[in-house]
Amino acid sequence: MLEGKVLVAQGGGPTAVINQSLVGAVLESRKFRNVSLVYGALHGVRGIVDEEFIDMTQETTHNLEMVGETPSSALGSTRDKPDLKYCHEIFRVLQAHDIRYFFYIGGNDSSDTVRIVAEEARKAGHPIRCIHIPKTIDNDLVLNDHTPGFPSAARFVVQAFLGANLDNRSLPGVYIAVVMGRHAGFLTAASALGKKFPDDGPHIICLPERTFRLDDFLAEVRRSVDRFGRCVAAVSEGIHDESGAPIATSLAKQLEHDAHGNVQLSGTGALADLLCEEVRMKLGIKRVRGDTLGYLQRSFIGCVSDVDQREAREVGEKAVQYAMWGEADGSVAIERTGYYSVDYRLVPLDAVAGKTRTMPDEFVTASGTDVTDAFRLYLRPLLGAGMPDAYRLRHNRVAKILK
Amino acid sequence: MLEGKVLVAQGGGPTAVINQSLVGAVLESRKFRNVSLVYGALHGVRGIVDEEFIDMTQETTHNLEMVGETPSSALGSTRDKPDLKYCHEIFRVLQAHDIRYFFYIGGNDSSDTVRIVAEEARKAGHPIRCIHIPKTIDNDLVLNDHTPGFPSAARFVVQAFLGANLDNRSLPGVYIAVVMGRHAGFLTAASALGKKFPDDGPHIICLPERTFRLDDFLAEVRRSVDRFGRCVAAVSEGIHDESGAPIATSLAKQLEHDAHGNVQLSGTGALADLLCEEVRMKLGIKRVRGDTLGYLQRSFIGCVSDVDQREAREVGEKAVQYAMWGEADGSVAIERTGYYSVDYRLVPLDAVAGKTRTMPDEFVTASGTDVTDAFRLYLRPLLGAGMPDAYRLRHNRVAKILK
Repeated sequence: MLEGKVLVAQGGGPTAVINQSLVGAVLESRKFRNVSLVYGALHGVRGIVDEEFIDMTQETTHNLEMVGETPSSALGSTRDKPDLKYCHEIFRVLQAHDIRYFFYIGGNDSSDTVRIVAEEARKAGHPIRCIHIPKTIDNDLVLNDHTPGFPSAARFVVQAFLGANLDNRSLPGVYIAVVMGRHAGFLTAASALGKKFPDDGPHIICLPERTFRLDDFLAEVRRSVDRFGRCVAAVSEGIHDESGAPIATSLAKQLEHDAHGNVQLSGTGALADLLCEEVRMKLGIKRVRGDTLGYLQRSFIGCVSDVDQREAREVGEKAVQYAMWGEADGSVAIERTGYYSVDYRLVPLDAVAGKTRTMPDEFVTASGTDVTDAFRLYLRPLLGAGMPDAYRLRHNRVAKILK
Repeated sequence: MLEGKVLVAQGGGPTAVINQSLVGAVLESRKFRNVSLVYGALHGVRGIVDEEFIDMTQETTHNLEMVGETPSSALGSTRDKPDLKYCHEIFRVLQAHDIRYFFYIGGNDSSDTVRIVAEEARKAGHPIRCIHIPKTIDNDLVLNDHTPGFPSAARFVVQAFLGANLDNRSLPGVYIAVVMGRHAGFLTAASALGKKFPDDGPHIICLPERTFRLDDFLAEVRRSVDRFGRCVAAVSEGIHDESGAPIATSLAKQLEHDAHGNVQLSGTGALADLLCEEVRMKLGIKRVRGDTLGYLQRSFIGCVSDVDQREAREVGEKAVQYAMWGEADGSVAIERTGYYSVDYRLVPLDAVAGKTRTMPDEFVTASGTDVTDAFRLYLRPLLGAGMPDAYRLRHNRVAKILK
């Protein structure tokens, strides 16, 4: 085993359990005698090139455990996507600080960074073991059954739609909620797990894996309103037309006659609002409401899957074990081995880096606007224990007297 | 005691605990021998005039308990605000069905309906005991320390801002979230309870009780960004200018040169988006994100205050006890008797009906953009047990080598 320091960093969008992976990696590293110190870089790769390190060997185990339970990246994150020059800069800093183990917790962009840094180290003949630790609420890493962070975000989405469906049933109308996930529809699809009774919503699920056609969508809304007197729709922020252009853009252009085109697409409520406007205008429905689940999906505190917590912790721990006992760099991947059990393996960095996984066809119904039982079976165990449930009154009707 | 039937209905916006009040009223009613049957009206007063009743004496106690734990009005709700004629219609139906006890769970509009129906009954010489059971996430009923439904909505807001603050700290920028409460700022103010460390957000709280001035708001955002490198703002959907006009309207007019004025104000993300646009344009800040907490605030499942649940249950029970053992119609009110304990009393309907309570001055700082410790002391016990908490790494800085 290489003698020297360990460096851990967190990149990309935070999740509810990303700190479990951090704590798993830090505590496991501290068990190894060849590790002199465990550093954390503030704000991901940005903090590495700026040498913004904290010494996590001087942190109490108790506080680490508490941080592990806290959502969002405790070390801070970054949206920087390093190019070759940037990665060389990272390597230079790692070398200067005698870092021999580099763990980067992030999505597929982060795994690409790890891949390039590992190559730089190899070229320079300065061995550094580089391991990518997976996280992303989008669930879009290839070679993984699922990705830490996704189960908790999915749980939030399920609970949000469970409640929204009850709200919509109580005060009927059309309710459209926009869910995160630009290219992969897993999180939007999760909304289906909020259904219990046959008439429960979401009645329509619009995924980025399928082409969105406004007329079809409006027809489905109409059908749901005719049948149930109401409609709940779960819409991915990434829905697009045949050309791949985001729907928010085309709808905004259509609505704004002056076409100044200054409509924001992300971090705004524009898509939900525009779809609501279409339903109101074209279907003549009065009570139409839109929500954009927004940042709550990835950082809400107090709505975490215990399965996700445990797995996020384990991928952090396993990363260190692979680094210490193994012979190769790589990315830790989650493999499903039973219903429900998982195991971990180390896969080559270039097999994961820069690739995007989307919803397989077997998870989507032929209509394209609902999920299959295969998806329900896939997702249910990930949501964890203690999922809230919704109950209804049974309607024992009383005969009318006046009418 | 009057012999006859009990009718329970639910009005206005749903809450996370409104079914506790329903179940409290139903189960308590079923203990009284003078009560022949317990009916529930579907969709509030609308269901009464349409004679849409279900017999809740034919519902199992177990299912009632499960429904009690489920958010949103199990009987359905309505936005109808009955006038005198409508109330007369209600009375006629109650009379026809031999209803002798009428319980209406709702906000101050609902208490006004109860008041008029009680008058109609008195005038017609057909005695019906009429009791209003309070609920509203806005916390705006007079003569109440607080209102069932508010504590759970507040808890959701606290947890949302707790997470959003962590997210914003991880990827710094400006984050603006719009909170429900058109006239009363209690729910927006609740966001302050998410603060733990001195630099935690929300850094700015904009209440409908204070006039909103865009320039002041932008100056405060600037100040927060200069000081903390980031800014989290909690903004009430009800913020308005000196003339009382909603800010969303004036901002929209300012931004849209053509001024078609077709911007939606409620159930949309417009206000958050417009404020974000102002921050982006006028302060030149790049990373600006907006969320509108929307319907999740009142119907999210799995984020309920146990104190709120208990009290919502009790106001339902007490309503029946006041009706059976008392001599008057009225509205059940919550009185705070200790830290923390409450008692209930029956107040006259006309003392509550149609009145709106807003944040008292002692709850708002002189700056108008933060809350006082008096408010923290007021709100904390209402949030209930098991509030999630956020932890941080302590920064033991490592000396730089290259820089």
